[in-house]
Amino acid sequence: MAHISIIGTGNMGQAIAGVFGKGGHSVQLLGQSDGSTPVTGDIVVLAVPYSAVAAIVAERGQSLAGKTVVDITNPVNFETFDSLVVPADGSATAQIAQSLPQSNVLKAFNTTFAATLASGLVGPNTTTVLIAGDDADAKSQLADAIAAGGLTVIDAGPLARARELESLGFLQISLAAGEKISWTGGFGVVA
Amino acid sequence: MAHISIIGTGNMGQAIAGVFGKGGHSVQLLGQSDGSTPVTGDIVVLAVPYSAVAAIVAERGQSLAGKTVVDITNPVNFETFDSLVVPADGSATAQIAQSLPQSNVLKAFNTTFAATLASGLVGPNTTTVLIAGDDADAKSQLADAIAAGGLTVIDAGPLARARELESLGFLQISLAAGEKISWTGGFGVVA
Repeated sequence: MAHISIIGTGNMGQAIAGVFGKGGHSVQLLGQSDGSTPVTGDIVVLAVPYSAVAAIVAERGQSLAGKTVVDITNPVNFETFDSLVVPADGSATAQIAQSLPQSNVLKAFNTTFAATLASGLVGPNTTTVLIAGDDADAKSQLADAIAAGGLTVIDAGPLARARELESLGFLQISLAAGEKISWTGGFGVVA
Repeated sequence: MAHISIIGTGNMGQAIAGVFGKGGHSVQLLGQSDGSTPVTGDIVVLAVPYSAVAAIVAERGQSLAGKTVVDITNPVNFETFDSLVVPADGSATAQIAQSLPQSNVLKAFNTTFAATLASGLVGPNTTTVLIAGDDADAKSQLADAIAAGGLTVIDAGPLARARELESLGFLQISLAAGEKISWTGGFGVVA
């Protein structure tokens, strides 16, 4: 069993904690008031908005060395809903990986709305978590931990694919914000 | 009923012709040997690979003025399968729109594999065609023509969203090429 720390107690943090809990893993859930609590997980999920990541990295970066760090963000420009706030050829994940060179940084959970993590379903489809990253062992460890919670996991490729995962996340959010789909739906993956 | 020209007789051209045929629309299907045949449709689908678009635009551009032109391409670097060959902040559709200023250029069909257009299904989900473009009337006309063929249609937003649709198409192709999903599956949309 893995021990997983989740920083962030919002909808996504809670839903992700639920997935790992179902899989029988131990979860440390850390909120804003737990800034002085050491992170104990082997896998650390940054379940916070993109705008909050830099402060966490600055504060906890040293303690994340050697760990698998999971970025779930969608760096959408929430003023315009018309673009991302990261460079067009990059990703939030690439930025975080650069600022945490001693951690294994992965992208995951950004293409699944919280409700679909909690229910395990996107309409008639089992919820699928797409993972991108360059460390095969870290991806495999995370994939096993998620699959134990009843979700499907697909290795979407190297860290560079985080760009496409963030585009997909942005598209899905823009469709939901525009009421073309609901926040309980979205993109289901059919293998 | 709409009259639709499809340039390209490959898997995608045939599958798209099938959708419009089911909807009771008249379809002109033009292949490589039909270069001298005038395009008669009000809607013209460029059902060719990205690398073949520039020659068609050069040859037929004048005759496409005033028409709705549908770009279905995924401008993937098929040598590396690791990037797109268009600028990271742009899209093939934006390039085509720039070279056809007198046409209403839309993105559609690039996120649906041919098999899912033919069957009408992505696993248990009705196949959904995502459309992006800046001309509301052109989008509405195309959406009606597709919906008549039994598929779901979602207006994914302005032409700028073609970037995200191409990212999604690229991701889907890379997953299928890597045998993580099949060419009859992919991303189903749950409203």
